[in-house]
Amino acid sequence: MNRVAILTSGSDAPGMNACIRAVVRGAIHHGIEVVGIRRGYGGLIRGDIFPMTSHSVSNIIQRGGTILKSAHCPEFMTVEGRQKAYEHLVSNNVDGLVVIGGNGTFEGALHFHDEFRFPIVGIPGTIDNDLFGTDYTIGYDTAVNTALKAIDRIRDTADSHERIFLIEVMGRDSGYIAVQSGIAGGAEMVMVPEVLLSASDLVDALKKGWNRSKSSSIIIVAEGETKGTAAALADQIREQVDCQIDMRVTTLGHIQRGGVPSAYDRTLASRLGLGALEGLLEERTNVMVGVINNQLVYTPLHEAVGRPKPIRNELLRMVTILSV
Amino acid sequence: MNRVAILTSGSDAPGMNACIRAVVRGAIHHGIEVVGIRRGYGGLIRGDIFPMTSHSVSNIIQRGGTILKSAHCPEFMTVEGRQKAYEHLVSNNVDGLVVIGGNGTFEGALHFHDEFRFPIVGIPGTIDNDLFGTDYTIGYDTAVNTALKAIDRIRDTADSHERIFLIEVMGRDSGYIAVQSGIAGGAEMVMVPEVLLSASDLVDALKKGWNRSKSSSIIIVAEGETKGTAAALADQIREQVDCQIDMRVTTLGHIQRGGVPSAYDRTLASRLGLGALEGLLEERTNVMVGVINNQLVYTPLHEAVGRPKPIRNELLRMVTILSV
Amino acid sequence: MNRVAILTSGSDAPGMNACIRAVVRGAIHHGIEVVGIRRGYGGLIRGDIFPMTSHSVSNIIQRGGTILKSAHCPEFMTVEGRQKAYEHLVSNNVDGLVVIGGNGTFEGALHFHDEFRFPIVGIPGTIDNDLFGTDYTIGYDTAVNTALKAIDRIRDTADSHERIFLIEVMGRDSGYIAVQSGIAGGAEMVMVPEVLLSASDLVDALKKGWNRSKSSSIIIVAEGETKGTAAALADQIREQVDCQIDMRVTTLGHIQRGGVPSAYDRTLASRLGLGALEGLLEERTNVMVGVINNQLVYTPLHEAVGRPKPIRNELLRMVTILSV
Amino acid sequence: MNRVAILTSGSDAPGMNACIRAVVRGAIHHGIEVVGIRRGYGGLIRGDIFPMTSHSVSNIIQRGGTILKSAHCPEFMTVEGRQKAYEHLVSNNVDGLVVIGGNGTFEGALHFHDEFRFPIVGIPGTIDNDLFGTDYTIGYDTAVNTALKAIDRIRDTADSHERIFLIEVMGRDSGYIAVQSGIAGGAEMVMVPEVLLSASDLVDALKKGWNRSKSSSIIIVAEGETKGTAAALADQIREQVDCQIDMRVTTLGHIQRGGVPSAYDRTLASRLGLGALEGLLEERTNVMVGVINNQLVYTPLHEAVGRPKPIRNELLRMVTILSV
Repeated sequence: MNRVAILTSGSDAPGMNACIRAVVRGAIHHGIEVVGIRRGYGGLIRGDIFPMTSHSVSNIIQRGGTILKSAHCPEFMTVEGRQKAYEHLVSNNVDGLVVIGGNGTFEGALHFHDEFRFPIVGIPGTIDNDLFGTDYTIGYDTAVNTALKAIDRIRDTADSHERIFLIEVMGRDSGYIAVQSGIAGGAEMVMVPEVLLSASDLVDALKKGWNRSKSSSIIIVAEGETKGTAAALADQIREQVDCQIDMRVTTLGHIQRGGVPSAYDRTLASRLGLGALEGLLEERTNVMVGVINNQLVYTPLHEAVGRPKPIRNELLRMVTILSV
Repeated sequence: MNRVAILTSGSDAPGMNACIRAVVRGAIHHGIEVVGIRRGYGGLIRGDIFPMTSHSVSNIIQRGGTILKSAHCPEFMTVEGRQKAYEHLVSNNVDGLVVIGGNGTFEGALHFHDEFRFPIVGIPGTIDNDLFGTDYTIGYDTAVNTALKAIDRIRDTADSHERIFLIEVMGRDSGYIAVQSGIAGGAEMVMVPEVLLSASDLVDALKKGWNRSKSSSIIIVAEGETKGTAAALADQIREQVDCQIDMRVTTLGHIQRGGVPSAYDRTLASRLGLGALEGLLEERTNVMVGVINNQLVYTPLHEAVGRPKPIRNELLRMVTILSV
Repeated sequence: MNRVAILTSGSDAPGMNACIRAVVRGAIHHGIEVVGIRRGYGGLIRGDIFPMTSHSVSNIIQRGGTILKSAHCPEFMTVEGRQKAYEHLVSNNVDGLVVIGGNGTFEGALHFHDEFRFPIVGIPGTIDNDLFGTDYTIGYDTAVNTALKAIDRIRDTADSHERIFLIEVMGRDSGYIAVQSGIAGGAEMVMVPEVLLSASDLVDALKKGWNRSKSSSIIIVAEGETKGTAAALADQIREQVDCQIDMRVTTLGHIQRGGVPSAYDRTLASRLGLGALEGLLEERTNVMVGVINNQLVYTPLHEAVGRPKPIRNELLRMVTILSV
Repeated sequence: MNRVAILTSGSDAPGMNACIRAVVRGAIHHGIEVVGIRRGYGGLIRGDIFPMTSHSVSNIIQRGGTILKSAHCPEFMTVEGRQKAYEHLVSNNVDGLVVIGGNGTFEGALHFHDEFRFPIVGIPGTIDNDLFGTDYTIGYDTAVNTALKAIDRIRDTADSHERIFLIEVMGRDSGYIAVQSGIAGGAEMVMVPEVLLSASDLVDALKKGWNRSKSSSIIIVAEGETKGTAAALADQIREQVDCQIDMRVTTLGHIQRGGVPSAYDRTLASRLGLGALEGLLEERTNVMVGVINNQLVYTPLHEAVGRPKPIRNELLRMVTILSV
C-alpha cells in the first residue's frame, strides 16, 4: 500500500476532524502517502482529490464539523456513480480508502467493495451511536454532553416555574442519546423508539410524581419516526390530564451535531483513525473498525450494515428508579 | 426602614439569584431584616413569606433560575389581589419591597404603588433587554452567550455541509438577542421586529453571497409576534429561489433562559440588587434601578413601563458590512 | 437490611452528588431507609448523621463537589476511631454502609470490615482513575475534559506566539489524566509516572518537531511525586537546548477537581450508586463496585486496595504517532 | 487611502481574530485593499506581508489567539527597526496601518508615527483592561469569564472540604480581572495592586467570616509585581493564624489568555475593527479607538499610552458588602 484516500460522508459528527488527523498522521508515520477527498462520495465521483500532509491536519483536533466537508450522495447508490469513483481512485494511484460516516456510508462502501474489490475500511462517525460492531461511535459522547448542557439549562427554568418540559433530542431510530442524556439529566421519563410507551404511561408517571409533591419534571423524547413527536405527545398529555398543567416543549435540533468534541470522542476518533489505517496495512478490507470492551475490533461491513444495536435494559430501568 | 421583602416575578433569567443574594446581604450589611416571598406576586397574595439570612443565599451566585421561584400572576392585576398582597406585607411588618422582573412585573408594581404608596423598587431581570431605563437587563448577556454557543455549534454543520441555517432566537418584541448574537456569530443577516425586512431582502442577500462563492450562511431571526416565524420564512425563501437549496431551520427555544450566569450578569445583578436596597434606604420609591453609561440610575416606574428601547442603527449596519 | 448510611471521603470528585442521589433513591425504591454522614469518616466518628429523603437529593445531579462534604480523616486509621464509628452506626440502627472515595477510603473500609464485619460497599470516586477493579472512576471523565478545555485555551496562545508550553496536570501516581488529555489535546509528548522519560527524551522530541518546522508544542506532565515537576523539567530543557526557546510552564491545579460532571460521570455514578445499594441487598460486602467492559463487577476490597492499574501501551504509542 | 495593513502585537487576547475580520471586511466594503503582517512588528521589519481577502477571515470570528500570530518585538523599539518597517510599508504601497495590542504596542506606534507621520490607528487588545481611552479592551470579558469558570470549579472543592482557597488571577499592574471575577465569583476578599492590603487585613476578614460560621472562603489575588504573590501571601497568613487552617493556593495562569471569545468581546472587537478602519478613512491618525459609554471614541496615542485607568471604588466596596 502506497497511497490511501480519506473522506467523510453523511451527517457530520464532532470528532471527525480528530479522526482525519489520525488517518493522515498514521499514514505519514508508516511512510504512506495520503490524499483527501472533498464532500464525501460526491467529491470522489467528481475527482475532487488533493494531497494531505502533516500540516493539513494541524490544529484541527478540537474542531467540530469536518474539514473535508460532507454530503449525502444519492449518485453513489448507482453503478455509474461508483464506476466514476473507482476510476478517480485508480487514476490518482490510490490503493486504499478510508470512509468515515454512518450506516448509509457503509452501505455505499459495501456495494463499492463488492463491485471493485477495492481495499476499504469504514469508521463509525455519527452522533446516534446506532451502529453495530462498536460500543461507541464518534460524536456520540459529545452529542450527549451537548444535550445534557441544554437539559441543565432548561431545568433551571423548569425548577423556577415548577413546570413540565418535554425535550426532544436526536435519534431517529435509536434512543441512545435520549437514554443517556435522560439518566444524566435526572429526567423523570425517557421515551425511545425501542420501547413502546404511550402518552398514558407518561401521564401515570407524572401523577405519581405529583403524589410525591414533585413540582417540576423533565421528560426526554427521542425524535422518532415522525416530525414533531414531542409536540404531538404534549397534546395527548394535555387531553388526558383533567387539571391545567404548565407544560412546554422544546426541540434541541441541530445544536447536537456540532461543537468542540469531548475528550472521549477525540481519543476514540484518534484510535479508530489509526486503527483503520493500520487495518488497511494489515490487508483488512471491507470492514468497519470499532471499539468493543475497549479493544479495537474489525467487523465485516455486511455484518455491520443495517443491524440494530439494542439499548441495555439496565439503563431504562435506571431512569425509572432514579426519578423516585 | 426595618424589614424589606424580595420576590422574583415573570420569566426567570440567569443572574436573578446573584441579585437576590445582593439584596439580602446588602440588607444585612445595613442592619435591616429581609424576608423572601415565594413564587412572585402570587406568593405575596397567599402570604408565602419567610425570613432570609446570609446563609440563605450562600453558594447561589452561580446558579441559573431563581431560588425564590417565579410565576406570572394574573390575580395581581386585580384590585382584590393587590389588596391581599398589601395586607400580607403589613402583617409581616415589611416596609419596603424589591421586585425583580420585566415589564409585566413593573406594571403590577406601578398599580400597587399607586394604590398603597408602598415603598417599592424594581430591578430589571429579563433576557430580552427590552426595558427602558437601563442599558442592560439581568440575564441578557448570558442569553446572548448561550445563543452564540448554539450558533457556533450549528456553524460547524453549516460549514461542513455548505448549508443555509435559519436560527430563531428569543425576543418577541425586541431584537437585542438577535442582533448581538448575529454580529458575534458572524451571521449573514439578522431579522428583527424593529426593522421591516421581507423574504425577498433575504433572498437578495443570499444571492449576493453565492456570487462571492459563499457556500454556507447563518441567518438569525428574532421570534417575532407569531410562532414559527423562521419556519414560515424558510418556506417563502424556498418559493423565491429557483434552484434547490439546502436550508434548515432550528429554534433555540428555552435553553436561552437558563444556565450559569456570565460574569457580566452576576456583576450587574449584584450592583442592581445592592442599588435597589440602598435606593429604598434613601427613600427612593416607585422606581426601577438600572445602569446607564455604567452609572446607577433610578427611573420612575411610570416612565420605564411599556416604553420601547430602540436598537442602535450602528449594530444593524455592522451585520451587513461584516458579512461581506 | 433496613437502613443504610452513605458518606463521601477523601478528595471530592465531580459526580459524587449524582452517586449519592442514586444510593438514596435506590434505597427508597427498595423500601429501605437511608441516612447521610457529613464530612466522611470524621463525621461518622462524631456521629454527624441525618436522615435523607428523595427531596434531599433533588436537583443535585449536575453539581460538582459533594453535598455530604468530605475530608481526609487520620483518626479513622486508629482502632479507637473506628470503634467510635461503629458505635454510632449501631446506635443509629444502620445495617449497611456505602463509602464513596479513593484508595485511602477503601483502606479504612477494609480495616473497619475486618474488625466489625460490618456490611460495607465501596464506590470508586476519584479523578485520578487509579483504582483497580474498575475501568473508570467517578470524576475522571470530567477531570480529563476540564484539563482538555484548559489545554485548548493554552494552545490558542502557543499557536499565536509559536511557543512551547509545559502543562502540569493532576495524577500523583497515575498518568491517566495526562495520557488521555494529551492524546485528545494533540500534545507532542506526555510525561507520566509509569514511564521513565528524561528531559533529554523531551529535547529530542522537540528537535524532531523543529526539523518538521513545527512552531508550537504542548507537553503534558503528570504532577508526579514531587511538587513543581513541570517547572523543574523546564529548567532542564533550557539547559540542554543551545538556542533560546520561548517556553512557559502552567500548572492546572485544583480546577481539575470541580465543575459540572460530564454525562459519562453522571451515568457511571448513577450505575455505581445503584449497584452499591443493590449489592448490599444481595449481601455482598467488603467489596468495591466497579464497571469492567461496561458490566457491573464487585471486587473484594483486599484485592482492589493499593493495586496499580497499568496504562495501556496503545495509548502511549498513539501520542508519539499522532504528533508526527 | 488605497491599501491598509493590519498586525497583532504583544500578548494575544480572545477576540483579536474577530477584530482582524472586521478590519478586513470593513476595508473590502469600502473598496480598499488590505494586507496582513505576520508576527507583529517583527514581521513588519522582516517584510512578512501578504494580501488578505474576505475568505482569509472566514470562520475565524469564534477562534481564540490570532491568525496573524503575535510577538513582542524589542527591535521595533530601535530607530533602525522602525526604519526597516517603514520601508516595507512603502514598498508594499500601504498607506494606513492598524495595530491591535496593548500599551507596549501603542508605545511603538507612537514612536513610529512621530518619526514617519504614517497614518496609524491602534485597537486595544489585551485581557488586562488596563488601557486608558476605552471602558473595555478586547479579551477582557472573555478572560474574566474564564477566571470565573475556574473559580466556580474551585468553589465546589472549597465548599466540600470547607477550605480556604487563594486564587491568583492575571493582571500585573491592574486589578480589573481580580475585582470583576471576585465579585462575580462571590469571593470573600480581593487583593489588587491599586489598593494596599496586607496579610493582616486578610486574616481579619477571614476571622470575621469564621465568627459568622463561614466554613469556606475564596480569596482572589491579582498577580502583582512579583511572581508567586499568592503563595507568599498564604505563608504570611499561616504565620498570623494560631489555629491550623486548611488553605490551598492555585494560580490560574495562561488559561486566561485563550479560548473562544465571548459575545461581548466579539461585538466589541467587530466595532473597534470597523471603527479603526473608518477612522483611517476619515484621516484620523495617531489615535487609539475605544468605546466609552458605549460610543466610539478616538484618543490620541500620546494621551492613552502609559496612563493608568483606576478601578471604581464602588466595585471594591461591593466585594466587602456582599461577602457578609
